[in-house]
Amino acid sequence: MKIIIAGGDGFCGWATALWLSERDFDVAIVDNLVRREIDEEMGSNSLTPIASLEERVAKWKEVSGKEIKTYVGDLNDWDFLSKVFQEFKPEAFVHYAEQRSAPYSMIDREHTIYTQQNNVLGTLNVLYAMKEFAPDCHLIKLGTMGEYGTPNIEIEEGYLEVEHKGRKDTFLFPKRPGSFYHLTKVHDTNNIFFAVNTWGLRATDLNQGVVYGVDIDLNEKDPALVNRFDYDGVYGTVLNRFIIQAAVGLPLSVYGKGGQTRGFINIEDTVRCIELAAKNPADRGELRIYNQITEDFSVLELAERVQKVGKERFGLDVEINHVENPRVEKEEHYFSTVKTKLKDLGLEEHLLTDEVIEKIFKLALDNKDRLKKDLVMNSPSWK
Amino acid sequence: MKIIIAGGDGFCGWATALWLSERDFDVAIVDNLVRREIDEEMGSNSLTPIASLEERVAKWKEVSGKEIKTYVGDLNDWDFLSKVFQEFKPEAFVHYAEQRSAPYSMIDREHTIYTQQNNVLGTLNVLYAMKEFAPDCHLIKLGTMGEYGTPNIEIEEGYLEVEHKGRKDTFLFPKRPGSFYHLTKVHDTNNIFFAVNTWGLRATDLNQGVVYGVDIDLNEKDPALVNRFDYDGVYGTVLNRFIIQAAVGLPLSVYGKGGQTRGFINIEDTVRCIELAAKNPADRGELRIYNQITEDFSVLELAERVQKVGKERFGLDVEINHVENPRVEKEEHYFSTVKTKLKDLGLEEHLLTDEVIEKIFKLALDNKDRLKKDLVMNSPSWK
Repeated sequence: MKIIIAGGDGFCGWATALWLSERDFDVAIVDNLVRREIDEEMGSNSLTPIASLEERVAKWKEVSGKEIKTYVGDLNDWDFLSKVFQEFKPEAFVHYAEQRSAPYSMIDREHTIYTQQNNVLGTLNVLYAMKEFAPDCHLIKLGTMGEYGTPNIEIEEGYLEVEHKGRKDTFLFPKRPGSFYHLTKVHDTNNIFFAVNTWGLRATDLNQGVVYGVDIDLNEKDPALVNRFDYDGVYGTVLNRFIIQAAVGLPLSVYGKGGQTRGFINIEDTVRCIELAAKNPADRGELRIYNQITEDFSVLELAERVQKVGKERFGLDVEINHVENPRVEKEEHYFSTVKTKLKDLGLEEHLLTDEVIEKIFKLALDNKDRLKKDLVMNSPSWK
Repeated sequence: MKIIIAGGDGFCGWATALWLSERDFDVAIVDNLVRREIDEEMGSNSLTPIASLEERVAKWKEVSGKEIKTYVGDLNDWDFLSKVFQEFKPEAFVHYAEQRSAPYSMIDREHTIYTQQNNVLGTLNVLYAMKEFAPDCHLIKLGTMGEYGTPNIEIEEGYLEVEHKGRKDTFLFPKRPGSFYHLTKVHDTNNIFFAVNTWGLRATDLNQGVVYGVDIDLNEKDPALVNRFDYDGVYGTVLNRFIIQAAVGLPLSVYGKGGQTRGFINIEDTVRCIELAAKNPADRGELRIYNQITEDFSVLELAERVQKVGKERFGLDVEINHVENPRVEKEEHYFSTVKTKLKDLGLEEHLLTDEVIEKIFKLALDNKDRLKKDLVMNSPSWK
């Protein structure tokens, strides 16, 4: 299957590209490399040293014998995107190519505008490219569990049947996203739902939870294949960040009470979910939506897990601090999620074991000298 | 009250500006005049000859003694918008300044991108300007009944209480908009809801129905005050367009079966609704949502009303044609709307009487020579 990974130079994208390439998908990466520029802007870095995209794919060819084509450019550049579609003729298009940090989108007006413009208009271009050049292509779009917010009812997978005054209808699940970034994913879902229904396109929307974990085995075959690992307050996700803090002797920074509960997924399952979605395409005119998570945890539970593993396996005395919450969010709330559709397709889950936490600990300890401590707590305030 | 009418050179905006100015609001118009440029682009025109914005406000001062300040510029130009907020210090901001035609947004990729960029990012700028310069200012935002689509349950005013698996929550009413334009209003609502909750702003979202009717009395005081009147397939609304067709001897073009039912409002009530919203501001941190309509009609019902008035009052033999529907929409469906909140605030409705239809007929007959017949059916296809 000819498959494009847009955003294939990023954390989830690079892992997915290798995973699918290893499995005989014909993979092309489309990326504008902006994530590397944002590191410059923020003064941040990947905890792991990462090679350039050129070096990565060259090394991958050497190691695996498989070729990954690359297109460096922007989804918002229509001439570029049309050329990619006409030349590569994708049968599936995995869309990771969005600004994906909630804190980044909340820095100020410019960052809000950049995030909404880049994400929403880029996706519109992809929809038009599919309509024009590849109407049978399957869009595999990364959404986020953060679209739902924390409703007081169970979170279904994308749709909700509503009964009201004795009548019934089924809607996209009503959303209550918590940042201008999360809002872009809601806008995307609404735009995609309309395009799918109006033009008869195929799409699967994967509402992914918070991703944790380190390199899948493929990334470990050579240093040039190593994936990025974010630990800063803007791009780092909570579990990865806690482990980094513990490894370097910083207290774990729990925002507020820590009762904030979210759906989580191991990067090893992310790549498998994409494979499953690609092998089970939506029908023409259908938008499938899956909740791409395996477990739910509260922030405080995660801190306690990290504290325990730090003590038991590394003899570390890890402190937990409740710090002022930069976000506007409920710190105690109901949270229950349905997450069965990907399992029904065959996902065998990699859950959060102590071994997984230990592996991330080791990565952190190995790269301790690269860590810039002041980045760990650099989240902007939502206010 | 110091009140900005953004989009004040347009159809609803100009009528609103005069109405509020007459009532001793201190009115400023903000407009980039793009609607006039779109006439150039589409080769279309207003059925009524309209004066320039400068001439309009000069004449208004002459006729009424009231000054309307004007700021010509774009909400997407942050320097301009900041200057407007800092200089005028608005207590309310009426936001009509969006690309408001569904067919225009469906012409092609460029028109989709333009519409979503202009509307969504412009509104984000307004939210940031309020946060930064006027946190107590009341945003009065024009939404549309088209955000809801045609659900199989009754359409409440903005919110829906949902019971699911024995638990309850209240959400923004789930939407199913029918064009890339209508989608921008849904994106706006979601962005505004977030900003109001996160920053404690005040906002009222008016989900307006299809507007019909001609000049309110104020516009008739002088030819330089006359409002625009769209009759083309892109910007003309259905009832106005049917009457134009009847007046010039064209058959009424009902899209498909004509069972499409929508909420409607007379332009005379539009201006009163804005006044009521301004006088009853939302609280800090509150997004009020009203359905700004007075009656529901199917397209076919409207055609038959026009046919009847044409015969009875003008002796015209009006034909009704069912033409191929350029839109993708249900042509027969359930439709029921709640519309009590504006009445509770004191709205006394101007319903669709035969006299109202007759008045529009007369306007059409008076301006017959300005009509370009090929514009009446120039809607692009949704496909």
